[in-house]
Amino acid sequence: PSRPLAAALLALVALAGPAPGQPPEAPAEAEPPAQPTSAEVLEAAAPSDWRALDPERTLYVELPGGRVVIELAPEFAPRHVENVVKLAREGYFDGLAVLRSQENYVVQWGDPKAGEEGARAMRTGKAGLAAEFDRPIARDGGGDLPFTPLPDGDVYAPEVGFTLGFPAARDARSGEGSGRTWLAHCYAMVGAGRGDTADSGSGAELYVVIGHAPRHLDRTVTLLGRVVRGMEALSTLPRGTGALGFYEDPSEHVPVLSVKVAADVPPAERTPLELLRTDTATFEAWIASRRHRRESWFLDPVGRIELCNVPLPVREPPAPAPDAQP
Amino acid sequence: PSRPLAAALLALVALAGPAPGQPPEAPAEAEPPAQPTSAEVLEAAAPSDWRALDPERTLYVELPGGRVVIELAPEFAPRHVENVVKLAREGYFDGLAVLRSQENYVVQWGDPKAGEEGARAMRTGKAGLAAEFDRPIARDGGGDLPFTPLPDGDVYAPEVGFTLGFPAARDARSGEGSGRTWLAHCYAMVGAGRGDTADSGSGAELYVVIGHAPRHLDRTVTLLGRVVRGMEALSTLPRGTGALGFYEDPSEHVPVLSVKVAADVPPAERTPLELLRTDTATFEAWIASRRHRRESWFLDPVGRIELCNVPLPVREPPAPAPDAQP
Repeated sequence: PSRPLAAALLALVALAGPAPGQPPEAPAEAEPPAQPTSAEVLEAAAPSDWRALDPERTLYVELPGGRVVIELAPEFAPRHVENVVKLAREGYFDGLAVLRSQENYVVQWGDPKAGEEGARAMRTGKAGLAAEFDRPIARDGGGDLPFTPLPDGDVYAPEVGFTLGFPAARDARSGEGSGRTWLAHCYAMVGAGRGDTADSGSGAELYVVIGHAPRHLDRTVTLLGRVVRGMEALSTLPRGTGALGFYEDPSEHVPVLSVKVAADVPPAERTPLELLRTDTATFEAWIASRRHRRESWFLDPVGRIELCNVPLPVREPPAPAPDAQP
Repeated sequence: PSRPLAAALLALVALAGPAPGQPPEAPAEAEPPAQPTSAEVLEAAAPSDWRALDPERTLYVELPGGRVVIELAPEFAPRHVENVVKLAREGYFDGLAVLRSQENYVVQWGDPKAGEEGARAMRTGKAGLAAEFDRPIARDGGGDLPFTPLPDGDVYAPEVGFTLGFPAARDARSGEGSGRTWLAHCYAMVGAGRGDTADSGSGAELYVVIGHAPRHLDRTVTLLGRVVRGMEALSTLPRGTGALGFYEDPSEHVPVLSVKVAADVPPAERTPLELLRTDTATFEAWIASRRHRRESWFLDPVGRIELCNVPLPVREPPAPAPDAQP
C-alpha cells in the first residue's frame, strides 16, 4: 500500500497498450479507458503488494487427496479462530472424517460420533461458542477495518468488497445503517457448522463452500476463514447420497488425516504461499481488470463484477532476484 | 398455470401454520407474512405445476460416473440446439472425451483432436454457427416469452428471473432498453465452447458450469441448456492441472461414452423426470419460500435471493394415485 494509486494505475495502463479488438478512435464515453489485463496487473505488482500467510493463523487439513490450506480470519471470528486453533493443537481433528459432500453447496467434516456414545472428548477446546455472525466496522483501537469496495452493488448487502483478504459485506449507511461488517459465503469460505441455536457451533465441525455462493447463510453461521489452496481435494469428493449430502454409510467417510496449525509444522514441510493484498492500488487495478476483461476472447466485456466472482490471487513466493536492490 | 395466484398462495399459507420461532403477535411491518417452507410448497404443488422433459429436447451424456441429463433450450439457441441434436444423432460425440475440468469454473468435453490431423469428421452437423448470445423478448407469433421476475435486483442485468425453466435475464426497460433476453451462467448451465470469434462455436464442444456462476460470460458465449440430473458425474471429476484446467496428458481424459437424444433411447432406458414449471403461482410461492427460509435452522431469514441461488426442483414422476379423479 506504499504506492500512490494514480501512479500505480498509470504504470499499469502503460503496460496494457491499446485494448484488443477495439477501434483506436472509439469515443471515450462509449468505452472505458484502456486497462491492463489480469495477467498484466499481476506482472506489474510490487513485492509489497503480496503478503505471506501467518503460520499462526493458517491451518493445514491433510486429506487423502492432498493438503487443504486455510487462512483463518481472527478479525471477524476471534473466539472461533482461537477455539479451532486449540482443537487443532490438541489433535482433536486428527482421524475424524468428512461426513458430508452436498452438490453445489458444502463439504463438511467433524466427529462421526458427535453427540453419541464414543464421541471424541475435547481437552482445551469448547463445544459451543457465542456466535460471531458480524462485528463492528470500527476497530477497538480506533479507525475502521480496511475495506476495498466493489462498485456494482449486491443482491444481499448494502455494500460489498474486501477486508484483509476476505470477501466481506458491510452496512455503513449513515443513520439507518447498522455499522456492522461480516464475511460473505463465497466459494471456498470456511464456516463453523451449528445446530438450531446460534451458540451451538464452535468450529469442531467445519464446512467449506463448494458451489454457487450461498449468500443467504451470511450472518446466519459463523465464517472463520477461507481455503487458499487445495480446494480440489474437497470439491471433487464423491457426493453423499443421504439428506443434505451426508454420507449414508460410515464406510463412505473420507478420513481427515490431521488438522495442524502451520506454525507447528516443520518449516520444510510447510506450503509457502503469498496472497495479493486487498488494500492496495494494485488490487484496485486487479478488480478493474476483472470488470473489463481485456483478453481478446472477451468480445464485449460486461464492465461489472459481483463479489464472489473476484478471484483472490495466491502464489508461491518468488525466488529473490540476484540483483535485487536492498 | 390454471390456478389463480391468490387462491394458491392462501392454500399454501394455510398449510404453513405459524412461522417457527416467531412470536404470534409480531407486528406486521416488522416481519413478512407467514409463508410455507420450501418442502411445503412442493407438497402442495398440483400435478399441473410439473412438466415432463421433452425427449426430443433432452440429451443423455453417458460418462463413467453415470448419466448426465441435459434439457436443451431451443427458444434461446435454436441453431445450436438443432446442431447439437444432429451431432448426437450422427454419433459425433460417442467416444470423445472430457478435456477440461477447471476448479470453480467449468467442465468441458469435445474432440481431443479438434483442429488437428485425425479430428473427427461431421456429417450433418456444422463446426461453426452464428452466435446466439441473446434474443428478442417478443416472440415471432406475438406476445412475450414468459418471465417470472425476481424482486431483489442483480449485479449484471437490469432484470433477472425464469423463462421456460431456465434462469434468464432481460432488458425490458422502456426507451433505453434493448428489448433482449438471454440465459444466465448459473451452476449447471451448458454452453457451446468457442474460439476467439463469436461464430466459432457450434456445440461440438460443450461446457458445464461447476462453480460460482460466471455471469461475466453472459452474452459472450452461447448457452443452450442446463443439466437437470447427474451434475455430480461432472463436478467431481479430477481437476486438470494444465492452463484453464485442461488435462495435460491424454491419459487423463475422461471418456464420453455416448451422447444421445432421449427420444432415440428405448423408453425403458430413459430417465423419467419432471421439472417444476416456472410460470405458475406455485413457482412464485417457491421463490418466496427461498427468500424467507422458514425452516427453524434459519434464525434470521435474509428476505432476498439472487438468481443462481434459486434451486429448480426436479423429481421422478409420482405413481398415479389409485383413486385419482379423471
